[in-house]
Amino acid sequence: MDNEYVTFPGSYLKDFTASVFKHLGVPEEDALQAADVLSKADVRGIDSHGVARLRSYVDMFKIGRINPKPKITVVRERKSVATVDGDSGLGLVIGPKANAIAMDKAAEFGSGWVSVRNTNHYGIASYYSLQALERDMIGWSMTNSSSIVVPLWGAERRLGTNPISIAFPGYTQPPIVIDMSTSVVAFGKIEQARRQGKVVPVGWMIDKSGNPSINPDDAFEQGALLPLGSTRELGGHKGYALSAMVDILSCVLSGANWGPFAPPFALFETPPEKSVGKGIGHFFGAMEIAGFEDVDVFKKRIDHWIEVFRATKPAPGQDAVLIPGDPEREAEEVRLKEGVPLLPAVVKDLQSISKETGIPF
Amino acid sequence: MDNEYVTFPGSYLKDFTASVFKHLGVPEEDALQAADVLSKADVRGIDSHGVARLRSYVDMFKIGRINPKPKITVVRERKSVATVDGDSGLGLVIGPKANAIAMDKAAEFGSGWVSVRNTNHYGIASYYSLQALERDMIGWSMTNSSSIVVPLWGAERRLGTNPISIAFPGYTQPPIVIDMSTSVVAFGKIEQARRQGKVVPVGWMIDKSGNPSINPDDAFEQGALLPLGSTRELGGHKGYALSAMVDILSCVLSGANWGPFAPPFALFETPPEKSVGKGIGHFFGAMEIAGFEDVDVFKKRIDHWIEVFRATKPAPGQDAVLIPGDPEREAEEVRLKEGVPLLPAVVKDLQSISKETGIPF
Repeated sequence: MDNEYVTFPGSYLKDFTASVFKHLGVPEEDALQAADVLSKADVRGIDSHGVARLRSYVDMFKIGRINPKPKITVVRERKSVATVDGDSGLGLVIGPKANAIAMDKAAEFGSGWVSVRNTNHYGIASYYSLQALERDMIGWSMTNSSSIVVPLWGAERRLGTNPISIAFPGYTQPPIVIDMSTSVVAFGKIEQARRQGKVVPVGWMIDKSGNPSINPDDAFEQGALLPLGSTRELGGHKGYALSAMVDILSCVLSGANWGPFAPPFALFETPPEKSVGKGIGHFFGAMEIAGFEDVDVFKKRIDHWIEVFRATKPAPGQDAVLIPGDPEREAEEVRLKEGVPLLPAVVKDLQSISKETGIPF
Repeated sequence: MDNEYVTFPGSYLKDFTASVFKHLGVPEEDALQAADVLSKADVRGIDSHGVARLRSYVDMFKIGRINPKPKITVVRERKSVATVDGDSGLGLVIGPKANAIAMDKAAEFGSGWVSVRNTNHYGIASYYSLQALERDMIGWSMTNSSSIVVPLWGAERRLGTNPISIAFPGYTQPPIVIDMSTSVVAFGKIEQARRQGKVVPVGWMIDKSGNPSINPDDAFEQGALLPLGSTRELGGHKGYALSAMVDILSCVLSGANWGPFAPPFALFETPPEKSVGKGIGHFFGAMEIAGFEDVDVFKKRIDHWIEVFRATKPAPGQDAVLIPGDPEREAEEVRLKEGVPLLPAVVKDLQSISKETGIPF
């Protein structure tokens, strides 16, 4: 019952989203931009980051936590680097503007790096790294998020799932697109297991006392996710270090709320005791390929890299070695044709938003 | 017997190393620089990357694979970015020079990014990120290495242990220094288990057929290490993606040998079938903190970050949450006072080098 998906064309969901944002006071151009980011998550199969989040965005607008008409400013810069203040706007609007600043800097100085404060959830990290490819650049994107992950050996939530995305363009091959949380899994995987009444694998989470747990309910009762690597023996200190890197580049550098102080994005989450900065933080980077190498030469080398890695002899029981970005690109091919499947709970959310706003769904 | 360490002052080992490099034709200034990099690994407790490698460097010089007097050149650049050719010199000399170019660019353009080809083993990745701290910069460093790691679901060696280092300076607190291989463990851990006749944990390695293995001998018989995350369930695709990122930034971008084509660093390793570039590759980055934020404000925020993370309630059975860089800094404090403990096998190597070169040890 819970898994009876209803399928909608991606463009229909995108138009609805844009109309909702406009209804909430977002200027048309920004509303279209924000809808494009959310929609990209849906068509690339990252369901947890698409219209499934629209309810949270609407709630945040209603309690005044999102400014529909932000004045996004560069508060400090030096040639290839800058800090941007998002003025509490939609992360889905601030993200593309800050990323454009990074790319413009790369066009002028060979690379551009922008740390952003006073923002909120920016959608999927790879939306931004993919934009850089259109300008023959290597794109980087990171963000913090509300705290649900422990540092290795800790028993308290201290970090978000803090994703990293980097994308490299191919010549005839599709691009290599890395987009990964620095926790062992995304929180959505725990939610999914809980809905299905299943336990989760050892190494994903701990309970509120800090003991290993396989019960997804524990994650909703002050338990936490483990960092990538899970245990000391399997490299959990490395996942923790990567998450720390994202936290520092996105927040400590920009003056956003880092670590446990990140404000939550959903109304049901408990806000942190205090604030140490403004909003959450992102970090964007772009590097002009032509500054390092002839663009076509680089892209042809990427093609060769992809061919060699795809031809790797698979381990017993596996079909083939994948290239980072393969699953999302394959989802995109299917969903652009066949539409985006939504869970009944998500459809209900969209219907309730439709009632509240008067926008047909 | 195998664990009866002999202790030497770090400075003694450094002087010996510098003399050996000079004997091999390396100019004095470069020899001192190279010895400083190797010595830093020894005093920071990363034994596999210090004088234990001197034998391999000497062998490479002898067969003409290292050029003692390289002409290190910038082959292409655009303001904040550049590609450097190391002319087959010592990685321990090329690394510091390329990193200096990145830092000089950061001083001029806010950030600096250098991809390096035609080089070889550059020591510990954190040597370079630590250098940036002295100039109030955030330092980045990566390198590829000879292929010993499988991509997730693969049964063939395709990537090196490809480390990433990033360092952030504190105000009164010591810096946060991330330095991690992107494989589940460094190869040295497998060697150590083999010496001690022990099995290794599930999740570290596979045998030559691609099946999981706990027998360290398998790693020496065409087996391989797994990427950070080990399995799909625990995020092995993420370790693979990070390793791919290092490979592309260091090698595909610069024109070095990427992935399975990286030339080996020790005589006993089988060279790859063909070459697709020059030497191995590194990637250095530096970001001027003052371009983003007042330097002292940033450093004080880092202090606060460290204090909050150190105060995390520990998981049952653990003493405390560590900060990235703690273990190496603690080793450095001890070893600067008490000296560097070397395994008898390493002492024998140094004695044989002493005989060959006539430099007393």
